[in-house]
Amino acid sequence: MSILADHGGLRILPLLGVPEVGPGDDLLRLLGDALAALGGLESGDVLVVAQKVVSKAEGRIERTDDYQGVILREARSVRRQRGELVIAETAHGFVCASAGVDRSNAPEEGTVVLLPVDPDASARSLRDGLSVRFGLAPAVIVSDSFGRAWRQGTTDVAIGLAGLEPLLDLRGTSDRRGYRLQSTLVAVADELAGAAELVMGKARGVPAALVRGFDPPAGEGSARDLIMPAERDLFP
Amino acid sequence: MSILADHGGLRILPLLGVPEVGPGDDLLRLLGDALAALGGLESGDVLVVAQKVVSKAEGRIERTDDYQGVILREARSVRRQRGELVIAETAHGFVCASAGVDRSNAPEEGTVVLLPVDPDASARSLRDGLSVRFGLAPAVIVSDSFGRAWRQGTTDVAIGLAGLEPLLDLRGTSDRRGYRLQSTLVAVADELAGAAELVMGKARGVPAALVRGFDPPAGEGSARDLIMPAERDLFP
Repeated sequence: MSILADHGGLRILPLLGVPEVGPGDDLLRLLGDALAALGGLESGDVLVVAQKVVSKAEGRIERTDDYQGVILREARSVRRQRGELVIAETAHGFVCASAGVDRSNAPEEGTVVLLPVDPDASARSLRDGLSVRFGLAPAVIVSDSFGRAWRQGTTDVAIGLAGLEPLLDLRGTSDRRGYRLQSTLVAVADELAGAAELVMGKARGVPAALVRGFDPPAGEGSARDLIMPAERDLFP
Repeated sequence: MSILADHGGLRILPLLGVPEVGPGDDLLRLLGDALAALGGLESGDVLVVAQKVVSKAEGRIERTDDYQGVILREARSVRRQRGELVIAETAHGFVCASAGVDRSNAPEEGTVVLLPVDPDASARSLRDGLSVRFGLAPAVIVSDSFGRAWRQGTTDVAIGLAGLEPLLDLRGTSDRRGYRLQSTLVAVADELAGAAELVMGKARGVPAALVRGFDPPAGEGSARDLIMPAERDLFP
């Protein structure tokens, strides 16, 4: 612990022992039990929860034999299409593959998992419930694996959040030389989601992770703050 | 330590005490000294080093009164332009703002910092030198802050690397239900770079961080593996 305490490092702890989650399951209790097994919460903790378990607990599962049809229905607009690959804007405004409709990790063959209707509200509900149980409210991020333009592979990003500001604004700060920094906004919520993915993995049954020691920018931001406004979107 | 050992968590440790780096400085020695102060290396460690200090040590600094001209010279192609904002493909194939030419954090007014000529080689050189000093070779990532399409804010990504595979290939693995996973490639090198940024910050003078406990996919990959091939790039 001394190296961590001396050096201000982070810890990223997987939440283990969470059983398979289904519609109506009490996700708050399941995650709370796993947190209790880690010794509870500390000030500045960020809990990152995979979208899939949030969606399943909220019953966002649909039986369908028309996967493409569900994607097109969930999409506000289709940005690109090539074969089965559809890059679409979701109702929330996120741009991602298949409008977030997921056929892997669905509970049964012939079903798909949809994004939560309001992922910020999902995060806020978990934050509020954990606050009641532990007497301390963690920042909460709901994360999903998104592809990117120009780069191979997915990284996890924040699609819902509560109890933090997702962007660290460096406007007005200066580097060592006093030059005003050009890249002024850091998407710390996305970096936190990606960091958590490193311990959550994809198929290992770890649906959440705790980031300890970061102490995120305080505030009541929304994952929608991470969406590029249409008038500044150079890749519509 | 018991929670970490029991739960397989990660630690992300900032490298502190590294002085301002300039052309010709022995970055290997400076980072090695900071690592020694952390107690040296452990098996599976990933060292993430900010591009800016790599570029400065390699003398990739240019005096100019024509910032836009340097950007256009460094760019293989310009993807979008709006006012002073130029989204360009670098000679390496990365798509980012200003073709990676950075006027903040430059050593003096009127100078700019360019990307390393071969960031993989920069990473490999650090890896090899640290291996000689510590008897253990860490994976090394050279990171930079890139903006993204559709999302606000930058996240740090890998622009050079040595001693790991940047993409974790889940093709052929199955989720709990036996369904073949759709999103099959995870860009773990980018997630590692983003995680490191959380402790490195932008203006705090911490040019590197150590990620301990992840044990990245072994291999001799390249950051170029992270570049979307032109024939699959839907946002040219």
